[in-house]
Amino acid sequence: MNQPKIVILGAGYGGLTTVAKLQKKLGVNDAHITLVNKNDYHYESTWLHEAAAGTLHHDRSRVKITDLINSAKVNFVQDTVTAIKPDEKKVELQDGELEYDYLVVGLGFEAATFGIPGLLENAFTIGSINKARLIRQHIEHQFAQYNNEPEAKQERLNLIVGGGGFTGIEFVGELANRIPELCEEYDIDRSKVRLIVVEAMDTIMPGFDPDLIEYAMNSLEARGVEFKLGAFLKEVRADGITVEQNGEKEDIATMTTVWAAGVRANHLVEESSLEDNRGKVEVTPELRAPSHEDVFVVGDCALVWNKEIDRPYPPTAQIAMQEAEVCAHNLVALVKGGELEHFEFINRGTVCSLGEDDAMGSIFGGKKIYGWTASFMKKVIDNRALYKIGGVGLVLKKGKFNIL
Amino acid sequence: MNQPKIVILGAGYGGLTTVAKLQKKLGVNDAHITLVNKNDYHYESTWLHEAAAGTLHHDRSRVKITDLINSAKVNFVQDTVTAIKPDEKKVELQDGELEYDYLVVGLGFEAATFGIPGLLENAFTIGSINKARLIRQHIEHQFAQYNNEPEAKQERLNLIVGGGGFTGIEFVGELANRIPELCEEYDIDRSKVRLIVVEAMDTIMPGFDPDLIEYAMNSLEARGVEFKLGAFLKEVRADGITVEQNGEKEDIATMTTVWAAGVRANHLVEESSLEDNRGKVEVTPELRAPSHEDVFVVGDCALVWNKEIDRPYPPTAQIAMQEAEVCAHNLVALVKGGELEHFEFINRGTVCSLGEDDAMGSIFGGKKIYGWTASFMKKVIDNRALYKIGGVGLVLKKGKFNIL
Repeated sequence: MNQPKIVILGAGYGGLTTVAKLQKKLGVNDAHITLVNKNDYHYESTWLHEAAAGTLHHDRSRVKITDLINSAKVNFVQDTVTAIKPDEKKVELQDGELEYDYLVVGLGFEAATFGIPGLLENAFTIGSINKARLIRQHIEHQFAQYNNEPEAKQERLNLIVGGGGFTGIEFVGELANRIPELCEEYDIDRSKVRLIVVEAMDTIMPGFDPDLIEYAMNSLEARGVEFKLGAFLKEVRADGITVEQNGEKEDIATMTTVWAAGVRANHLVEESSLEDNRGKVEVTPELRAPSHEDVFVVGDCALVWNKEIDRPYPPTAQIAMQEAEVCAHNLVALVKGGELEHFEFINRGTVCSLGEDDAMGSIFGGKKIYGWTASFMKKVIDNRALYKIGGVGLVLKKGKFNIL
Repeated sequence: MNQPKIVILGAGYGGLTTVAKLQKKLGVNDAHITLVNKNDYHYESTWLHEAAAGTLHHDRSRVKITDLINSAKVNFVQDTVTAIKPDEKKVELQDGELEYDYLVVGLGFEAATFGIPGLLENAFTIGSINKARLIRQHIEHQFAQYNNEPEAKQERLNLIVGGGGFTGIEFVGELANRIPELCEEYDIDRSKVRLIVVEAMDTIMPGFDPDLIEYAMNSLEARGVEFKLGAFLKEVRADGITVEQNGEKEDIATMTTVWAAGVRANHLVEESSLEDNRGKVEVTPELRAPSHEDVFVVGDCALVWNKEIDRPYPPTAQIAMQEAEVCAHNLVALVKGGELEHFEFINRGTVCSLGEDDAMGSIFGGKKIYGWTASFMKKVIDNRALYKIGGVGLVLKKGKFNIL
């Protein structure tokens, strides 16, 4: 028995879609497949902003990995990766190590703090189930404390979202819907609560169509969201932030800063001997590391160039899952023989949620959609991601059908 | 129009039962009745331990005062009492003052801290809706933080209840039921959580029958509750407590100390010129202040002597409501003419809840009851209190019918 050993690191969109495809295409005797993940569950990272806002329970956005894999074909190891050693063809884990013939790196993102003082210590990031439910509880705790203090502390009701990009805007949309519920729960006037987006660019959602941006801002402002554009976060403290806008500095008292402005690839990629570009691996057309052709990289750790605009594609679930399909195909070709494919990104459009029943985006070659239509499409996209990972069963179990 | 002015301070069990009875017995032209309360709602203070544990939503234990009073007969003033001036026949409020011909003081309890260092600053007390929901959120926040810290902090999962009396035991019973839910919500092993009752006496529930005490301890220990008896709380810090037991001191790391060991009457009583005994007014048989016969005192601010055992009756909702009936009768007699009644406490028994579906206590002349029977009786008692204050309508709206 000389089966090649395939090791997949990470059960996010990239890693898990790869596994789902491999276990369909490979027989029990074709390869020895191992999936490594820190938690015993996969989570829909694009849904975490809802868990963080408290509008969707986090259990709705996670699935036990053993419910998704075919344990006759895939060995699941719950452990934390501590180092990738491509020259030795092995991976170090907290509690052991693994050798491989083929490696798939799908270790996802972590927050990029751009050296802003105090950000790492005092801001929250929406990066995991643990962090998302902590944000939910932290915010609720501020509301619970507010009426218990002899001097009302406005910093408890000032909520700052750092970054008006995709994650920041989706989170603000949910939070804007959650705030009236919190106000009712803790007997607080809605007018006392401030929800402020701080964005360094002159616009939210840079790169989106101006009509869509205007729609999003109107929708959020109607629910009380304030925007500080062209505003740089200079410092984050436990009880406030400093913002610089038009050359003037302003302090805003707050106990809650959620940083949604920057992500980078998992630091293990940069620390490995895989050639990196901006902390990611700029992959070959077959999605392999240029320096190590037995290593595939998918998702947020992979850098793929968009030649049309001469910039890298942004890290999204959509591209991660498309990469995983090609990665799995190529692994099967290497194991059983066949042609290797080249990756080409097919843009199926992007929809940005603005809360439970509102959204905006573009689909099929640039058609703009808004409001209920966009919100419906967003749920279709979310359910499609579930389908790719766990089939119809998972869609029925965790899917979003609150479409009316 | 020379109607006597009746002012009732506090919409707790005592004050509100007085109002409910007065508005039945007096016509619109008989008296000018004013009820003063800090909040625009009455709350069932004997249910607050459930809101604090998170097992019953606080909205279930409160009612809007305007839904309970007949506004043609009773004028409701939402304000905070700052001083009682019986010699001037007036009451000072935060935003004004009121003159009276007859006053009813029903201002309830506040926590007694016995000078324990750090208790006031660092311990929670279950004294209001605001405080109860803060405790609920504080505990949940500890669980939410636990898995987000590189070094696990046991103090987040150590929960201390100061006092093994009625309130302490009822709270622990609810919390013991809540903990498995919190463990599931935040992916924490139940075995890591400690729930510790610190009681200075050698027994919990002093004065209760030993069989009942044993039953309660067994029920709670089976759900993981630890008891430190004969143990004195020497200090409360933000991150721990010091306990002295058998002459030995022990530090326990904790972020959560809930103090349920002592109550005293509202401090306004002691600060007034009403004669006080242990901070309360030792009332005449008609429930009047000995020094001022136009002032009635009901509930936790009144001291009534139990001659059988030569000790004061403990402050309970049961005695407060019985006092209110006599107080209202006597006010009606003073306004319309008639005999004044003397107060006699009728012990209808006491049932201590041990959580949703368990309880223990004694009823009808000392018959001991346990488990489901006692739990059922407890709900009957809770519903009876609602009935006294708001009639059948309130029982149907907020009552406890989860009796199976």
